[in-house]
Amino acid sequence: MFGYRGKYIRVDLSTSQIEIESLSDEFLRKYIGGVGIGAKIVYDETTPETDPLGPENVLAAFTGPYTGTRIPSSSRNHVVALSPQTGIFGEANVGGSWGVQLKRSGFDGVVITGKSATPVYLWISDEKVELRDASPVWGQDAYDSAEWLKGETDKRATAAVIGQAGENQVRYASIPHIGKIVRSAGRTGMGAVMGSKNLKAMVAYGTMPLSFADEDALNESVKNLVPHVRDATDDFRRYGTAGGVEKYEYMGNFPVKNWQGSRWKEGAEKISGVRMHDTILTKNKSCRGCVISCVRHVKIDEGPYAGLDAEGPEYETIGTMGGECLVDDLDAICMANDLCNRYGLDTISTGASIAFGMEAYDKGLITIEDTDGLELVWGNAEAMVEMVHRIAKGENIGKLLGLGTKKAAEELGGNAIEFSVQVKGLEPSAHDPRRFWTQALSYATAARGACHNRSWAHPYELGLSLPEMGLDKPQKSYELEGLAEYVSKLQNFQTLNDTLILCRFAQVGGAISLANTVEWYNMITGFDLSVEELVAVGERIFNLKRMFNARLGISRKDDFLPPRFMTHNRDKELKTQLPPIGQMLNEFYAYRGWDEIGIPTKEKLAELELSELNA
Amino acid sequence: MFGYRGKYIRVDLSTSQIEIESLSDEFLRKYIGGVGIGAKIVYDETTPETDPLGPENVLAAFTGPYTGTRIPSSSRNHVVALSPQTGIFGEANVGGSWGVQLKRSGFDGVVITGKSATPVYLWISDEKVELRDASPVWGQDAYDSAEWLKGETDKRATAAVIGQAGENQVRYASIPHIGKIVRSAGRTGMGAVMGSKNLKAMVAYGTMPLSFADEDALNESVKNLVPHVRDATDDFRRYGTAGGVEKYEYMGNFPVKNWQGSRWKEGAEKISGVRMHDTILTKNKSCRGCVISCVRHVKIDEGPYAGLDAEGPEYETIGTMGGECLVDDLDAICMANDLCNRYGLDTISTGASIAFGMEAYDKGLITIEDTDGLELVWGNAEAMVEMVHRIAKGENIGKLLGLGTKKAAEELGGNAIEFSVQVKGLEPSAHDPRRFWTQALSYATAARGACHNRSWAHPYELGLSLPEMGLDKPQKSYELEGLAEYVSKLQNFQTLNDTLILCRFAQVGGAISLANTVEWYNMITGFDLSVEELVAVGERIFNLKRMFNARLGISRKDDFLPPRFMTHNRDKELKTQLPPIGQMLNEFYAYRGWDEIGIPTKEKLAELELSELNA
Repeated sequence: MFGYRGKYIRVDLSTSQIEIESLSDEFLRKYIGGVGIGAKIVYDETTPETDPLGPENVLAAFTGPYTGTRIPSSSRNHVVALSPQTGIFGEANVGGSWGVQLKRSGFDGVVITGKSATPVYLWISDEKVELRDASPVWGQDAYDSAEWLKGETDKRATAAVIGQAGENQVRYASIPHIGKIVRSAGRTGMGAVMGSKNLKAMVAYGTMPLSFADEDALNESVKNLVPHVRDATDDFRRYGTAGGVEKYEYMGNFPVKNWQGSRWKEGAEKISGVRMHDTILTKNKSCRGCVISCVRHVKIDEGPYAGLDAEGPEYETIGTMGGECLVDDLDAICMANDLCNRYGLDTISTGASIAFGMEAYDKGLITIEDTDGLELVWGNAEAMVEMVHRIAKGENIGKLLGLGTKKAAEELGGNAIEFSVQVKGLEPSAHDPRRFWTQALSYATAARGACHNRSWAHPYELGLSLPEMGLDKPQKSYELEGLAEYVSKLQNFQTLNDTLILCRFAQVGGAISLANTVEWYNMITGFDLSVEELVAVGERIFNLKRMFNARLGISRKDDFLPPRFMTHNRDKELKTQLPPIGQMLNEFYAYRGWDEIGIPTKEKLAELELSELNA
Repeated sequence: MFGYRGKYIRVDLSTSQIEIESLSDEFLRKYIGGVGIGAKIVYDETTPETDPLGPENVLAAFTGPYTGTRIPSSSRNHVVALSPQTGIFGEANVGGSWGVQLKRSGFDGVVITGKSATPVYLWISDEKVELRDASPVWGQDAYDSAEWLKGETDKRATAAVIGQAGENQVRYASIPHIGKIVRSAGRTGMGAVMGSKNLKAMVAYGTMPLSFADEDALNESVKNLVPHVRDATDDFRRYGTAGGVEKYEYMGNFPVKNWQGSRWKEGAEKISGVRMHDTILTKNKSCRGCVISCVRHVKIDEGPYAGLDAEGPEYETIGTMGGECLVDDLDAICMANDLCNRYGLDTISTGASIAFGMEAYDKGLITIEDTDGLELVWGNAEAMVEMVHRIAKGENIGKLLGLGTKKAAEELGGNAIEFSVQVKGLEPSAHDPRRFWTQALSYATAARGACHNRSWAHPYELGLSLPEMGLDKPQKSYELEGLAEYVSKLQNFQTLNDTLILCRFAQVGGAISLANTVEWYNMITGFDLSVEELVAVGERIFNLKRMFNARLGISRKDDFLPPRFMTHNRDKELKTQLPPIGQMLNEFYAYRGWDEIGIPTKEKLAELELSELNA
């Protein structure tokens, strides 16, 4: 099938056996790629008894039909496994170049099972696959390890490589993907799954050309669109994702003081993307082939973090490590961000867990004896940076906070669960669901927990449209009518994007339409699918993920918002409104064809050709 | 102090020691009686480690200053202990005549601690108190036991006596109080606490007169008001509490099919108080000295329950055993009600737990193997009656359902928690919070769990007023504005009524005003307290109960409504609306002077002279 290799690598680390397995055309049409294939394989090969950190967990990293094309913002891949952080469906989408290297090596994906007796890494290059000893870099950070791995393999290779956090099985350890730049599969602890399997890295370098059904048409279409993408993303290129800090603070979307606070203008200004641009930014960089170039590179010349010369923090990182911790020191946030890249830690859960720790300290549930003298107080930049070290190493109070806020709150007892801000065990991104009701419903219903990205609804609420799906105009703020349909459609659409795979930022400014997306898919594969047919695949996979979780006991009771999101901001200036989550869910389930407790009905599953699934 | 004996009985069952302790004037002014004294004593004498079914639990049964006066609807008492059903503050208010007998024996209350080695009962009469052997009736039902106890003591005595359910420590076992009529301290498992202590009964008979500060004025005032009370409660006397069945079904307030259903007109008609009146009612009866006479007595002449000649079911019992179980057989409900009185089971939790069991059976979580062949299907009257036996005896699936719906759902697993309709472990009364938002907030915030009675707000929402507290007109349906204040004031007021002690039904028709209530208190005690001062005691005790629970870990997270109450009735005909519980709680906490997670602030505690309490 055009646009695919039609085969993937299967590695059983317990036996060191490597197999090449094929993907049928039917399977690829049904699940397309990325999250679709990953979710189906992990669903089929795990059970409700599977321990996320045991050898029986399955990690699936897949590309999509877009990977390796010239489509801008498409050099990505998707990682799926049972999550050690949430205990349910885990997934992370990552940029960089690893997916392209894998696909150019002749494979659409990798499936890892079992556990190696000693540290190993996987080396993939032009149809050759081997397991090699990783002992020399076990215990080393992701940067140093990547450097060594490239030396052992190919300087041009990309390494999906864990740091010490993944080795230590910190529940929200990430998988940094290191080529020319560093991008991480951050969320739900995919790095801990690699660590539990003694798999230090998956390194890939490929040179084999790909073929597409109508390559000329594809390249012509892409070429015509690129200038528009460039134009539409000018601000984004200039300030990166962090450009949103001041705007979102003004709107009441930015998290402050573990979501307790409201306005924090003076702080936001000091840590914004504009400030970064005007002070420490040295260049912007991009994932392979991307014309947006949102990646920051910063250099710090003075102060306690002088000498730091590394990638800069994203909006989400500034929101959690800055806003949530009340840290208005941009240098410290850059330092903590770089440490997360080195150790291999999800910056969102790291920052959010530290903020949770600060509130627990503030409330006397964690004392200075627990922190071994560290003053874990709001705004203490030094303590925030120090906590990243401790979380990665599992030292002292870092061991507790490394569990994530839900498990940490359970351990702490008292009233800690009241300020553990998470859904299904995952800390939210830096977008306030009291400001964007579309995100309230998204947080409650995303398979991996409080994730804004699985609908990416707030930019739509702010002005983007999707006319091909009937979303001509934005959902009105604080309006229940039409909300369930609006969010559902965006979820189906973004799930499709996670299969193709196309970066969310391709949607910025509206330069790439869904019509383009579908056209490209057809040019790549030679099919002639309609928008409806392709979006139906998104819906299928969204439901597959729901069934994955339903089998693990997830239902309506878990589609909650944490107490803090049910509480108004105290500052009346921000006219945010509490989301009526009960009504939202009813209408959402009804629209989705799910039953009263949020389980897809047999009729819906049949319609989606998923009748084989059982909750 | 006038209106009190100023002393209470303290029994340590572990040592068989009986002490008479005094109550200071200051203490009585601060806590008045009933729930106030009980809550303070149990708070002081238990800890977060206390096992509700262990010897260290403390059971306090107290009268109030009204007990023993001629004030209509005042012959009641209040029982407090740590609840074996919810694990938190347990309480039950009960009519009949036991409180009057106790007070006329020279005591305001009884406090029980420890555990007896063998079954005993307490015999109280005219300042004499003794523990006696109850072995002859251990294992017998409450009726037979009461008969024997009266034979051993005095035919005119009243026995607060548990049946087999209390002995078996069924989590929601009641304490039937049996004199001329049977009234039960039904909720939160107070009967199981007695059972765990090997205390079969507390029997009282007293003849000592009471004196009041201005007895003539009191009797004159009461005498003048009695005709008005009689007039105002005419319908209530005719049809009893069950008179509400059809009206509430019509309104969307009546529970149907474990709260899944909506309209059930044909069923409601068959089991209503009107139907009872027109068919099987033989007489109505009353608690001692009450002019309302809401108690039913029924006699069944034919069919499977022919021969039943017993007290008839209340509205709540018909709601749970009838509506929730879809049982439209009034005779069967009467039978099950009588069995609950005999075994000593709370009819609300019994009916609700059976309904939960029927839904679990319907959904395949309980099978016919589990029920030993019993078809636990909706509307199976015979199965409903049979389940009462099994719950009391802890037989078969009855053991599971005897845990209450929360613990039973946890045991069952799967999605059972989704249809476990309870708050803090207590099943709601038969009033739908989707119909009465005042009750939604009441369910979420009552100390003992989903209780409608601690605010008794729905009759106020339907027309009663309380001008002395500024509640001139009813809270509008489905309106958030003013709701928190409205419910808070009613809670404070009803808490006051639970100290004095005055039956809720004295409020029916509005014949007895708060001004009367305060006047009577002053005539009894000789004080000159204002409405505000007296209501402030209600607020104090409401906060004391909250602090009792806060010490046990209760906070905002527990002030929830179960998923089913967040779901619309499917039948659009009933225009009930989902309560926005998050917003309700915020405004409630703010009005009450509680913090963001629902803990009374230090300032509020100081204002209420409760600074010694700690959460």
